[in-house]
Amino acid sequence: MANDKKMVEQITAMDVDFAQWYTDVVKKAELVDYSGVKGCMIIRPYGYAIWENIQHDLDARFKRLGHENVYMPMFIPESLLQKEKDHVEGFAPECAIVTIGGQNKLAERLVVRPTSETLFCDHYKNIIHSYRDLPKLYNQWCNVVRWEKTTRPFLRTSEFLWQEGHTMHENEADAREETLKMLKCYEDFYRETLAIPAVTGRKTEKEKFAGAMETYTIEPMMHNGVALQGGTSHYFGDGFTRAFDITYTDRENKIQYPHQTSWGVSTRMIGAIIMTHGDYNGLILPPKVAPIQVAIIPVAQHKEGVLEKAGEIKSILEAKFRVKLDDSDNSTGWKYSQYEMKGVPVRLEIGPRDIENNSCVLVSRVSRQKTVVSLDNIAEEVEKMLQSVHDELYARAEKNLEEKMSIAHDYDEFLDIAQNRPGFIKAMWCGDSECEDKLKDVTGGVKSRCIPFVEEHISDKCVCCGKPAAHMVVWGRQY
Amino acid sequence: MANDKKMVEQITAMDVDFAQWYTDVVKKAELVDYSGVKGCMIIRPYGYAIWENIQHDLDARFKRLGHENVYMPMFIPESLLQKEKDHVEGFAPECAIVTIGGQNKLAERLVVRPTSETLFCDHYKNIIHSYRDLPKLYNQWCNVVRWEKTTRPFLRTSEFLWQEGHTMHENEADAREETLKMLKCYEDFYRETLAIPAVTGRKTEKEKFAGAMETYTIEPMMHNGVALQGGTSHYFGDGFTRAFDITYTDRENKIQYPHQTSWGVSTRMIGAIIMTHGDYNGLILPPKVAPIQVAIIPVAQHKEGVLEKAGEIKSILEAKFRVKLDDSDNSTGWKYSQYEMKGVPVRLEIGPRDIENNSCVLVSRVSRQKTVVSLDNIAEEVEKMLQSVHDELYARAEKNLEEKMSIAHDYDEFLDIAQNRPGFIKAMWCGDSECEDKLKDVTGGVKSRCIPFVEEHISDKCVCCGKPAAHMVVWGRQY
Repeated sequence: MANDKKMVEQITAMDVDFAQWYTDVVKKAELVDYSGVKGCMIIRPYGYAIWENIQHDLDARFKRLGHENVYMPMFIPESLLQKEKDHVEGFAPECAIVTIGGQNKLAERLVVRPTSETLFCDHYKNIIHSYRDLPKLYNQWCNVVRWEKTTRPFLRTSEFLWQEGHTMHENEADAREETLKMLKCYEDFYRETLAIPAVTGRKTEKEKFAGAMETYTIEPMMHNGVALQGGTSHYFGDGFTRAFDITYTDRENKIQYPHQTSWGVSTRMIGAIIMTHGDYNGLILPPKVAPIQVAIIPVAQHKEGVLEKAGEIKSILEAKFRVKLDDSDNSTGWKYSQYEMKGVPVRLEIGPRDIENNSCVLVSRVSRQKTVVSLDNIAEEVEKMLQSVHDELYARAEKNLEEKMSIAHDYDEFLDIAQNRPGFIKAMWCGDSECEDKLKDVTGGVKSRCIPFVEEHISDKCVCCGKPAAHMVVWGRQY
Repeated sequence: MANDKKMVEQITAMDVDFAQWYTDVVKKAELVDYSGVKGCMIIRPYGYAIWENIQHDLDARFKRLGHENVYMPMFIPESLLQKEKDHVEGFAPECAIVTIGGQNKLAERLVVRPTSETLFCDHYKNIIHSYRDLPKLYNQWCNVVRWEKTTRPFLRTSEFLWQEGHTMHENEADAREETLKMLKCYEDFYRETLAIPAVTGRKTEKEKFAGAMETYTIEPMMHNGVALQGGTSHYFGDGFTRAFDITYTDRENKIQYPHQTSWGVSTRMIGAIIMTHGDYNGLILPPKVAPIQVAIIPVAQHKEGVLEKAGEIKSILEAKFRVKLDDSDNSTGWKYSQYEMKGVPVRLEIGPRDIENNSCVLVSRVSRQKTVVSLDNIAEEVEKMLQSVHDELYARAEKNLEEKMSIAHDYDEFLDIAQNRPGFIKAMWCGDSECEDKLKDVTGGVKSRCIPFVEEHISDKCVCCGKPAAHMVVWGRQY
């Protein structure tokens, strides 16, 4: 227990300094290291394995929905980025630009992709000619760069990893359906795989993606009451396809512009996992993306038969789970806290007494409760506990989301909540972006997160200006 | 057959213009499209699916050997790249450089990674302290940029995708073992997965990687007698670790520099597949990486029961194989040549007559022979034919490699072979790089490929200068 304490002491307490707690966790759990490149992170093996598990799960979901993976160049000629006016205005301030290639000044500057709508459009122009070529449902997994002033591992980095889907459809209805289908895909993934509930809805005009007609968002609530934009899905109409002159011959032999979508999630999601599930003892990983699902810790491992039995159990479990047997010469106490800090969902303890009883001890990372189980059906027992860890994580996060959801009926109440109750605020809004600006200014950062699909009627008036309300908006501070 | 002919006519004949045949195949089989960015390619779904299959197979091999994946920044501060003298000299001429970020001129220019030895070293300095931290066996899958003047899809592009392994070891012996182990890993992968035989060996001083003590290479032979550097594995000694001041405390409590390796293969391998296996009818894909392993073509598909039976067969096969059932309204002739061009290893034809006989027809893409097989054990039959396609591809490629291996006993014979017999040339060499330069000049491009692990004794003298021979070298033109 002395060791255990020491390990936990290395992590700042969440309620003392949440930002420092976050930094401590990503460093001590060996998820990332800082690099010598400003704003760029090194994703270490344990962090990258989480990303690989995320990719594996999401990629299968995309493919089941008919999407195909491609790879586009990482450079965008400046003139190409400038083809769609709103888009370039949105991204120009945060671009990294290559001006030299092979020791020569380039005739045209190249932007390191901040997103790839323009590249996809340039390609789609070549390959879309007839309605038979539609829909095109492409996705790519890649790195992108957005020059950021202040950065934090996973949450905001100048370079990050993501997937970006870019699709083309015959008409508005099909494209709108795709936009919502992919938002739903993200929502399912967050719930089923990451054990994270979230608010979903439509962004206001002000918060939309540069060049989009409509942006939908998924917004999970972090432990400290700050929201995180966890993924977006955009409907573009035919804005880009007109700008890029992409046309196709429809079923009536008429020339038409296809309708477009794009959608993406990134390594940010690892930040969401940390800040949704983590606790005073460190990281807690949802079992489906945990690089190690079960840590087997031999107790009194020098005693005869202990390591052999631990090895046997490992062989049985690793057919189905990601397992680590730690037979190092560190103390069991150190091992317990080490794997707790690393967020391993289930710990399995096996010692001489357990072996005598043909049993072992399973410990849940969430409840930290110990359960003695028979070795006869150990795989089923582990499966059950992993499922319960997932369920408990989800229930806990849902409770947090509910507790951090307030309703503001008027301006004063809005300010009071913004000041005193971290979390989401439901409040009515007139539809004018000036009110969004004002609320953000007076609260020091509370912004509209989204207009949810089902809007409640809280009052008739905008919480800011008092004019007739157009929508109920969920507001909140954001990462 | 009219359709069949038309399709094949779209592809230039290999012996008329091999380079044009290659370009036709990559375009018509929809592997790539050219992008508006000079020297960068768009990898289309069919091409990218090959890369995904390659990644999946290789990644599992790396992990079985104990390697872990990480992700390093894509930018290298210029001062970091300059820390190892030979390394920066080798790469400086072909770098793309970011000079502007977020609309401001950068204080230090950033090089888009051409390779990541320097970034890995910078990180290893932080995390290696004791012999207990060794070995470190890291790998990353990423994009890299090397500014190229003349480019060709897959073979030479300014941006390409690859994996780069970077490992650190306690001593020279361990690092050298890793270097050779990974070369062997690549050799096994080429043989077992890509069905490609190759010459392997050590690069001469002149052809070594910038900064390496030793570079090993795998060199498959293309159909036209030109070699392709298909992968390299480098031993660095402690050159970088001294330059980066990476030290560890050894088992005797002494401060030591670790020894380093790196190794990589890239999307070039797709070029190797095309030029090793392709034929007059287009692409031929080795079954293990083919995005479609079996194309099911219904014959007289309007007749009752045909599409149903084709669907049944698909359900059975797709449990084990990557299957495409083409029930489009294109003619069967068009479909036959389409999937031949795309290199699908096995075609399955099913029509009313076959159904009556409870059989179907399997056609091998390599031999183009038709085999009537019973539907009762269709999965086994397909498995057998896929295996035979792999074996035939390997045997054919091996025959090509043997036929294109010549021996030159003296200077005149060397020039004669270089002029008249495309392929490898085995010849003795004194060890002086001036002779390499001279042979390259007089032949218009024949270079030393490698010093194989087993050297034959062809003569006592260097084929170029006549001085005593130090090694037998395999020479050849290269992509």
